[in-house]
Amino acid sequence: MTTFKGVVPPVVTPLTENYEVDYASLTRVVENLVDGGVHGLFVLGSSGEVVFHDDATRRKIIEHTIKIANGRVPVLAGTIDPTTDRVIAHSKAAAELGVDAVVVTAPFYARTSQGEVIDHFRYVREAIDVPVIAYDIPVCVNIKLDRKTTVTLAREGTIAGLKDSSGDDGNFRFCLQDLADLPDFFLMTGSEIVVDTALQMGAHGVVPGLANVDPHGYVRLWNHAQAGDWVAARAEQERLCKLFEMVWVALPRVSPGSAGVGSFKTAMQQLGIIETNIMARPQRRLDAGETAKIVELVRAAGLMG
Amino acid sequence: MTTFKGVVPPVVTPLTENYEVDYASLTRVVENLVDGGVHGLFVLGSSGEVVFHDDATRRKIIEHTIKIANGRVPVLAGTIDPTTDRVIAHSKAAAELGVDAVVVTAPFYARTSQGEVIDHFRYVREAIDVPVIAYDIPVCVNIKLDRKTTVTLAREGTIAGLKDSSGDDGNFRFCLQDLADLPDFFLMTGSEIVVDTALQMGAHGVVPGLANVDPHGYVRLWNHAQAGDWVAARAEQERLCKLFEMVWVALPRVSPGSAGVGSFKTAMQQLGIIETNIMARPQRRLDAGETAKIVELVRAAGLMG
Amino acid sequence: MTTFKGVVPPVVTPLTENYEVDYASLTRVVENLVDGGVHGLFVLGSSGEVVFHDDATRRKIIEHTIKIANGRVPVLAGTIDPTTDRVIAHSKAAAELGVDAVVVTAPFYARTSQGEVIDHFRYVREAIDVPVIAYDIPVCVNIKLDRKTTVTLAREGTIAGLKDSSGDDGNFRFCLQDLADLPDFFLMTGSEIVVDTALQMGAHGVVPGLANVDPHGYVRLWNHAQAGDWVAARAEQERLCKLFEMVWVALPRVSPGSAGVGSFKTAMQQLGIIETNIMARPQRRLDAGETAKIVELVRAAGLMG
Amino acid sequence: MTTFKGVVPPVVTPLTENYEVDYASLTRVVENLVDGGVHGLFVLGSSGEVVFHDDATRRKIIEHTIKIANGRVPVLAGTIDPTTDRVIAHSKAAAELGVDAVVVTAPFYARTSQGEVIDHFRYVREAIDVPVIAYDIPVCVNIKLDRKTTVTLAREGTIAGLKDSSGDDGNFRFCLQDLADLPDFFLMTGSEIVVDTALQMGAHGVVPGLANVDPHGYVRLWNHAQAGDWVAARAEQERLCKLFEMVWVALPRVSPGSAGVGSFKTAMQQLGIIETNIMARPQRRLDAGETAKIVELVRAAGLMG
Repeated sequence: MTTFKGVVPPVVTPLTENYEVDYASLTRVVENLVDGGVHGLFVLGSSGEVVFHDDATRRKIIEHTIKIANGRVPVLAGTIDPTTDRVIAHSKAAAELGVDAVVVTAPFYARTSQGEVIDHFRYVREAIDVPVIAYDIPVCVNIKLDRKTTVTLAREGTIAGLKDSSGDDGNFRFCLQDLADLPDFFLMTGSEIVVDTALQMGAHGVVPGLANVDPHGYVRLWNHAQAGDWVAARAEQERLCKLFEMVWVALPRVSPGSAGVGSFKTAMQQLGIIETNIMARPQRRLDAGETAKIVELVRAAGLMG
Repeated sequence: MTTFKGVVPPVVTPLTENYEVDYASLTRVVENLVDGGVHGLFVLGSSGEVVFHDDATRRKIIEHTIKIANGRVPVLAGTIDPTTDRVIAHSKAAAELGVDAVVVTAPFYARTSQGEVIDHFRYVREAIDVPVIAYDIPVCVNIKLDRKTTVTLAREGTIAGLKDSSGDDGNFRFCLQDLADLPDFFLMTGSEIVVDTALQMGAHGVVPGLANVDPHGYVRLWNHAQAGDWVAARAEQERLCKLFEMVWVALPRVSPGSAGVGSFKTAMQQLGIIETNIMARPQRRLDAGETAKIVELVRAAGLMG
Repeated sequence: MTTFKGVVPPVVTPLTENYEVDYASLTRVVENLVDGGVHGLFVLGSSGEVVFHDDATRRKIIEHTIKIANGRVPVLAGTIDPTTDRVIAHSKAAAELGVDAVVVTAPFYARTSQGEVIDHFRYVREAIDVPVIAYDIPVCVNIKLDRKTTVTLAREGTIAGLKDSSGDDGNFRFCLQDLADLPDFFLMTGSEIVVDTALQMGAHGVVPGLANVDPHGYVRLWNHAQAGDWVAARAEQERLCKLFEMVWVALPRVSPGSAGVGSFKTAMQQLGIIETNIMARPQRRLDAGETAKIVELVRAAGLMG
Repeated sequence: MTTFKGVVPPVVTPLTENYEVDYASLTRVVENLVDGGVHGLFVLGSSGEVVFHDDATRRKIIEHTIKIANGRVPVLAGTIDPTTDRVIAHSKAAAELGVDAVVVTAPFYARTSQGEVIDHFRYVREAIDVPVIAYDIPVCVNIKLDRKTTVTLAREGTIAGLKDSSGDDGNFRFCLQDLADLPDFFLMTGSEIVVDTALQMGAHGVVPGLANVDPHGYVRLWNHAQAGDWVAARAEQERLCKLFEMVWVALPRVSPGSAGVGSFKTAMQQLGIIETNIMARPQRRLDAGETAKIVELVRAAGLMG
């Protein structure tokens, strides 16, 4: 279970100009991350534009990533869709393809209670035979996993870990304290900008979308923290924070979603990792002016000659 | 296009104890509505638990409903899923099955801007050859269709109508005024409890989930309004408001979603229209005590001996 | 108590260029309203910029308004401040000055529960000897008065009426139905744009800020509704809706607060009722370009030659 | 200006059973904090129930606190009220009484824009001759100070520091980075539970309400961080997090406001620092059962024999 700890980036899904997955680029994305020293890969997360892909495409993305990763790091897959039985279908497919864990959000569109959210995770866990990681992302699913929900699911063994993208660092800390006696349970932050502090709290892993652009940075940050060198960790984090400013460049012309993942894609394109900065429809790609600003940030961060 | 006006209930999807669609019960639901005098049927809306059903089930529900309706009233189908291309896939399937229109929400899970929402509807409209009705339901998709978005899409002919479940009656009124010169465009309210007032504003139709329980009531309300008898319309509305109290009976034991549609199913079961009050997972069904309270409300509304 | 029914505008507070109350203009505001046929005056509401005024100024505004109204219509006064004892102090001062009722919101800044809100109104009512009207305005105080809170306070006689500026017309309707057997209790809507429909529901009064600009319009609307002429009521309402577009002219240059009351002041200045369109600090006044757009709307509404 | 750095608790205002300020208890509160080693005192903050007190009481609280502090630590005073001119009046009074700085929120009740908020702080700063500290507390005032607002006000010298109670630690970090070149500007977190991490980011001070109960704990935490001993800082923080659980004991019987400050008062009463746990009206005090639970937490934290 400890294999899921460390830097586990949510892998961006590169697209062609025709909105199809660009597998040659995806190969380079994965190689770039593994070369960067990351400890795991999380495909089909929000940064991977999971909800834009149909069943067949999801399977191909998982298959391709596992093939390229080739056992060098574990592969986690988001099996995200609005409701329980559809999540189970995705999770079964992912499990058959050999993922090391599935990552599952609360139901969305339909509004559910904390009790129903607990049942949702239990139904999923009962249906499959790989670890389930809860993904707390209220900005997308419109419900926060209560501390009590997380602790209940963790203690009974329904979930093996939590990815916290809620931005509620106080609640994250309480979950860490509540579950400190469970040696295998792991809590990962989805933040790009408060990673050193999440690690100071005891977080077991980080899932930063920005690591697609600068995996070495997050791995260095992780290593500093593991060594207890919090001064170096903070310096690295602050450098990454400046790079992170890219996510606001295209606002408000496009949505926060397009502006965020779109900026990562744009930087990756400029770094030669992927072919285009196309986003899945109806999201808008970044334009030339925005790209120029992102190049400045990438250069200032020392990633470009 | 005027065929879509009037009372167009969102058809509840009855389930068996094994969580499968109960088509015999669905037949009775449809017959009960048509017998009640409704002017159209809207399958696979939020009340139809659309996001809980996979592609094949959605197709069967549409097929069955069209067969039973048998041309007596038009059939609209929700083709609701998180993103553009998946909505297009559902919409194509629905169009092939012969629906009279598809009903489409803004994208969800991924956060999009008003501009991207406009593009979303345009992409859908370009891909299919049946009318597209916009469905404004921010409580589910976390974004409100701006007045300007609705007006733009209406004037350019991308959408043929709007179903407004936003609860923002002032905005609804402004849309009605803005589009008063488009004779074929129609605006329907999704409310159960301010229908007489929506009609007083000039609304062209109503889509009340509660009409599954009492179609005659909403048809009478509609007829009173058409006749300009606002005193009778209000009296009928107030009777229906008392019946609507059922949606709060199971709160907070279950979620608002389960409590609402679950109460309709419970009432319909008690009225002999459907076999069970089962809700799709992970939603919870209403229990015996809640059922007893609902029976009281149904009886008080004059629907039960 | 029935004296509080009908059109009861929230009186705008005109200011000089030095941010002092312009009592000569206030006289004209009041005369214009009384001449327009309104049934009561509500000073020191949100439209009266109540929270911007200190104790002494509030007293002078009340005193002046009562003097000018001179018994022709009742005068209600907002006694709005964050907490119970401060509201009581304002309410005692208002009662001594002879207001017919005080208008009180839930506490704000400090977050309180529904139970504490109930206690708040009870404490206020116990401390003074004039009727208390509850003012439900969650956009300002960050809490909605629950239906149960309103009904409890009404039935026990703590509050004599409710001004609903919550925008939740469904909840407003349920309160109307719940309290239909209390002949003296009155429910007023704070809306400018769904007044005909609130009256269709049975509302006893309307408190539209826009009536400062066009009192005759709202009085006509009221009279049509009292006569049961809903077609004429709707036509009048639609004319007023077009006039109401003024509240968006200055967005987003200024805040919604400044844009709304500021547009009323600007129109009133152009109509010769008040001297300036100054707003209390730090709110911003409308500029020349915005004023020109408002003049167009005023002219289109038939209020200007 | 650096005198404001360190642990600066928001001083609780003890009340008698008659809802009057208990100055003998207030003396003990101040002595307990100064003995605990705190670096400053912040009276009339949210924890001091500032909005519940009228002008005269606020003056007396400031006067008394300054007298007791007697120059041992600086005294900051909240001058919080809904609008600019009223804040200026409070600020002038506080300045005359000799406070070292005033603490000012954005306007509330009236909704203002970021531009108007900037003007608000400028008007206040122009009117008085003591440093102004911005207090970012959206949960109370319903608006967040944008990063750009804070940076603008800091760079132009309008504000001398920021107290951040927004819970948005990412934004806090960006403000810290943006203003790192201003040696005298200080940023303080209002959190009780992510203090070690705020200090890891570079925060200059902490304003924890819980320090009224355990000042030594927060001073130790501060000292560990200053010494770069992040392991000890985290251990101390985790002990304080467990103590902080007291703020949820009375939920949902009372509001979050009453539950939080009320739990501090209850603990302080049990520790013999103050006479009652009375909260200002209409807030509710904690009851015997809740008190027993709080005693357990206080004992577990090692504060009671």
